[in-house]
Amino acid sequence: MSSQKRYLVKFLPGGESVKVPHGYNLRQAILDCKLNIDSSCGGVGTCGRCRVQVLEGEVDTTESRFISKSDKEKGFVLSCMSRVKSDLTVRLPEARKSRGSITIGGFDSTGKDYAGISTDELSKVEIEPWIIKENITVEAPSLSYGTSDLYRVKKSIMEKTGVQDPAIPIDLIRKLPYTLREKDLNVSVIIDLENSAVIDISPGHGDKRIYGMALDIGTTTLVMYLVDLQSGKILDIQSGYNPQIKYGEDIINRIVYANRKGGLEHLREVIVDSINSMVKNLVKHTGVKESDIVSVMIAGNPTMMHLFYGVPPRFIREEPYVTVANRFSNSPAKDVGIGQLVNAYVYCVPGVASYLGGDITSGVLASGMYREEELALFLDLGTNGELVVGNSQWMMGCSCSAGPAFEGGGVNCGMRASEGAIEKVVIDEDSFKCSVDVIGEGKPAGICGSGLIDIIGEMYLKGVIDRKGKFNRDIGNEFLACEEGDCHYIIVEANSSATGNDIYISEIDIENLIRAKAAVYAGIRTLLEEVDLGINDLAKIYIAGGLGKHLNIRNAVMIGMLPDISLDRYHFLGNTAVTGAYLSLLSAEKYRQSVKVAGDITYIELSVNMKFMDRYVAGLFLPYTDMKDFPSVEEHIYSIYKKPGPAGPGKKDKTS
Amino acid sequence: MSSQKRYLVKFLPGGESVKVPHGYNLRQAILDCKLNIDSSCGGVGTCGRCRVQVLEGEVDTTESRFISKSDKEKGFVLSCMSRVKSDLTVRLPEARKSRGSITIGGFDSTGKDYAGISTDELSKVEIEPWIIKENITVEAPSLSYGTSDLYRVKKSIMEKTGVQDPAIPIDLIRKLPYTLREKDLNVSVIIDLENSAVIDISPGHGDKRIYGMALDIGTTTLVMYLVDLQSGKILDIQSGYNPQIKYGEDIINRIVYANRKGGLEHLREVIVDSINSMVKNLVKHTGVKESDIVSVMIAGNPTMMHLFYGVPPRFIREEPYVTVANRFSNSPAKDVGIGQLVNAYVYCVPGVASYLGGDITSGVLASGMYREEELALFLDLGTNGELVVGNSQWMMGCSCSAGPAFEGGGVNCGMRASEGAIEKVVIDEDSFKCSVDVIGEGKPAGICGSGLIDIIGEMYLKGVIDRKGKFNRDIGNEFLACEEGDCHYIIVEANSSATGNDIYISEIDIENLIRAKAAVYAGIRTLLEEVDLGINDLAKIYIAGGLGKHLNIRNAVMIGMLPDISLDRYHFLGNTAVTGAYLSLLSAEKYRQSVKVAGDITYIELSVNMKFMDRYVAGLFLPYTDMKDFPSVEEHIYSIYKKPGPAGPGKKDKTS
Repeated sequence: MSSQKRYLVKFLPGGESVKVPHGYNLRQAILDCKLNIDSSCGGVGTCGRCRVQVLEGEVDTTESRFISKSDKEKGFVLSCMSRVKSDLTVRLPEARKSRGSITIGGFDSTGKDYAGISTDELSKVEIEPWIIKENITVEAPSLSYGTSDLYRVKKSIMEKTGVQDPAIPIDLIRKLPYTLREKDLNVSVIIDLENSAVIDISPGHGDKRIYGMALDIGTTTLVMYLVDLQSGKILDIQSGYNPQIKYGEDIINRIVYANRKGGLEHLREVIVDSINSMVKNLVKHTGVKESDIVSVMIAGNPTMMHLFYGVPPRFIREEPYVTVANRFSNSPAKDVGIGQLVNAYVYCVPGVASYLGGDITSGVLASGMYREEELALFLDLGTNGELVVGNSQWMMGCSCSAGPAFEGGGVNCGMRASEGAIEKVVIDEDSFKCSVDVIGEGKPAGICGSGLIDIIGEMYLKGVIDRKGKFNRDIGNEFLACEEGDCHYIIVEANSSATGNDIYISEIDIENLIRAKAAVYAGIRTLLEEVDLGINDLAKIYIAGGLGKHLNIRNAVMIGMLPDISLDRYHFLGNTAVTGAYLSLLSAEKYRQSVKVAGDITYIELSVNMKFMDRYVAGLFLPYTDMKDFPSVEEHIYSIYKKPGPAGPGKKDKTS
Repeated sequence: MSSQKRYLVKFLPGGESVKVPHGYNLRQAILDCKLNIDSSCGGVGTCGRCRVQVLEGEVDTTESRFISKSDKEKGFVLSCMSRVKSDLTVRLPEARKSRGSITIGGFDSTGKDYAGISTDELSKVEIEPWIIKENITVEAPSLSYGTSDLYRVKKSIMEKTGVQDPAIPIDLIRKLPYTLREKDLNVSVIIDLENSAVIDISPGHGDKRIYGMALDIGTTTLVMYLVDLQSGKILDIQSGYNPQIKYGEDIINRIVYANRKGGLEHLREVIVDSINSMVKNLVKHTGVKESDIVSVMIAGNPTMMHLFYGVPPRFIREEPYVTVANRFSNSPAKDVGIGQLVNAYVYCVPGVASYLGGDITSGVLASGMYREEELALFLDLGTNGELVVGNSQWMMGCSCSAGPAFEGGGVNCGMRASEGAIEKVVIDEDSFKCSVDVIGEGKPAGICGSGLIDIIGEMYLKGVIDRKGKFNRDIGNEFLACEEGDCHYIIVEANSSATGNDIYISEIDIENLIRAKAAVYAGIRTLLEEVDLGINDLAKIYIAGGLGKHLNIRNAVMIGMLPDISLDRYHFLGNTAVTGAYLSLLSAEKYRQSVKVAGDITYIELSVNMKFMDRYVAGLFLPYTDMKDFPSVEEHIYSIYKKPGPAGPGKKDKTS
């Protein structure tokens, strides 16, 4: 009724703007402009990732531990905790504004080479198509052979493929009499041999080429392959951020959002929209007809699968942590929102339990460990660390919530492994100055997971921090800035950074990272102890996930995150979720195997496991409470310091 | 653009009116008023059933053999052949205006007694529910038993019902986590044991009572039972005309209409609307909740089933006469238009071939002949005559197009067996005056099938017609009216009829009826000859269909329509289509048996069978060319005339 005052809010660097009423949430205004803003907590002020800089105008904001005094003076606020009180000009974080062509986990979306596995290599997999297109000639009816069209079609299918009495949807039956007669009883039939289902019947004989899509729905990223189902060739790849990020960056916050009224439907809508766009792009780039795409194989963690199918994920995060389903039934693509794929069915790689999903089944499938005699550990490092240990005889898996630290979350200057991210750090042992390597050509904008692991490792080795992760304040470190007792270590100074601000690491950041590495290692140890095995029984350790490609294994071992065994036992696999989906799509044996693998993995819930808790607490030291677990680290430290470690001030010339 | 003149067309006796442009089709105007008008040819002037009387105003009409000179003078026209040229007042045929409560094939829709089978009798059938509602308590998950909701539900279902891995639709899965937890893991599950499918899952334990519907979609009528699936009790019955009648009265004209643009969709729409209304009425009358109705079992002839499922029936009437499908797959009710039944699945009784549908499979099922050793003949007499002969060892079936004569079609004064129809006729052998019995209390309005059979029989016995069906014009029959060489025999004079017109039978009518009876008998003989059997090998003859209840078997034998064997071998079954559907609904054994029966019947296409043609031509005499086929008729005639038959003038006192 009242003509409420509306303010113009303008965002830099893009210049997007929106009019909002007095008191409007600033983060919401960003979302209204369809701009990306990180916020792993979903907008409740606890992750500190939605920092923006108010250049002009006034906001009503809440104090936050993520905003230092000096930042506050520069106009930095958490957008989720700020309300608009006037016209505004707001600068969004440079590194996070990227749209369009993106880089994911070190994977350049324009190339075909993915996380170390080339399309050539992928194409070498044994191809055993289980969705096929066959040209068939249906027997003619006659006065003495007056069987129904349906019967004769099924008979021809049986003779050609061996599939008995396949299911044929009513919409195909409605067209059947004309489809059959249009080209004189010659038709081509697309059939799913594994599920005895006819996907399409069309008039005339034609090209047997059909296509499928392998889709990884990750919490952070989406990756989709367009695949020739006969040759196995990957024609093109699309990738992008999971648009649900806006509504909660990790699984837990996604679930929280889904619990809100309309939240689940909204999350489902945005992911389906993104998938549809990716399909459109793939079709446009390759010229493949949408009607020739007959299958979509999805792998994702349980929460992502629940959200995609519109199934409430709520009980995944409530004790005793159960999914609604670990495998969703095959659906026509239009039934799950991908209406443009008129002839496609959507399949999914089955998951194991609430925090061990089809993405991990895919990974185990891609690693091949399920058919080997030697013992292997599969490790998917992302927001959650998922682990499977075993061989062809048995497998056991678990998930340990590492938190988003390795993806740059919960860390002040953290960011994902994209353009501008610091991925490698070396600290000069005298000056404590950092030398950094950055992804891409530009200036550093933040630190990604592998950079953070390097920093922790280097800080520990060079004595910048002690074994507990606390700064050694009396070593003459000029890059240590302290303010009211809180210190942070400057990695890149403001004048050298892309954002114009210091890139630093604080004690809280370090704490978060140590927690994350402790969780991963505790998971590995606990899992092995459950089956009375030790680290050295592992013949192979497979590393999958976004962190993989840039990870410095040696440093990950150094900080006590990964087991201290010979580095040649480590193997990087890249994004195994999409690889496993691709394999399932191409090979009937792999498709069946994925179901078997999911069934064969015994899941252990770690969240209440006392051994895990003990291991976790022991891991809150660098590299670990008991150095005997990390003999090579102990040896290395000893070779530098001539004592078990830089417990006090770290510079060797000062202490030796 | 031009303001076209519009005329007011008013219909008596109801007073409905509509404004139409110059030249508008009169039959269409009737349909526009949502009034019923018979028209078996679909409006092309060949059936003569859409006669109306123009009382005031002017139409442009085409000459027709169905309109005599005197009728023409009275203003009678075929509405389908007439175009509006002025304001009009038009009288619709009295007997055909009935709406609301109707009588079908002698079945009073308000009673529960159906065609000789009482609900008590029906309820005695062995009940073996295959769609059940079970209260189950799903195992609780725990940290050490973190299986998915879906797995635990399936496990409980398996333990309770033995059904392994039932299909559960995605919309149930979407609600599953809340359904399970609302009443502490107690749920009630509706499950189709025969198809391993879960129909519904709802919170809490409750009443196990669920309901089903048996539906006969006949060419002319719809009949629906609401059935308690536990007790077998029929709670209520609904019936009504098939609304598609307006668009073609018989199967062929229905197919012709379906071939038009939008025709199939329209026919589907009107039938689905009618079914929905019937469901609404049943629910209203009985208080049964729509959500407790879990199944609809449909029996219908192949064309009706094609139209209901929206499948083009075109090739049913084109040589070599094949259906698209004889069995349609089970569908959620909402997928086939019955959206109000949120929890129901629609099933159908499978058919055999293009003119031998699920209605006949149902009939054979209801007769029980499929499990007897003795040889039986099943006969469904309607627009088409359908026949099945056999026993538990073998069955063979065919269809012979009897034409609509027995349902009153193609006969000037024919009508269906409803209120006002003459169902019994006796001719006084001296005066040739007819005495008639009429259905209901009113004056006679027309003649139904059984009345027509009586008339032919009586006319033949009393010498009104000769063996070829031609009038004996020199016997002093005062009720024979001739005009320009065409004669017709007056059954009821105008002053005694409900319509105010004579009720009569013409030589063309008789010809149609003789053709119809010849087709039925030729079908029976041909079928038996195919398996080298004779009439006397038949232990039982079952008569089903609308004609059944009022049929005078003796007269049907007399005219050579039904085999001349002991009358006690004949058994009336009534509407076996709905009975068979009802049995399939109630008993798993019967449901399975219906599939087996449909598969076991060997179909013979008679339309091009030369033996059938020979038999048919031989049947164009009364009772048959060779009297030896009808010994009891021969004997009877001889006992009256002391010679083989009244070939010439018929009165015995004049010829003996």
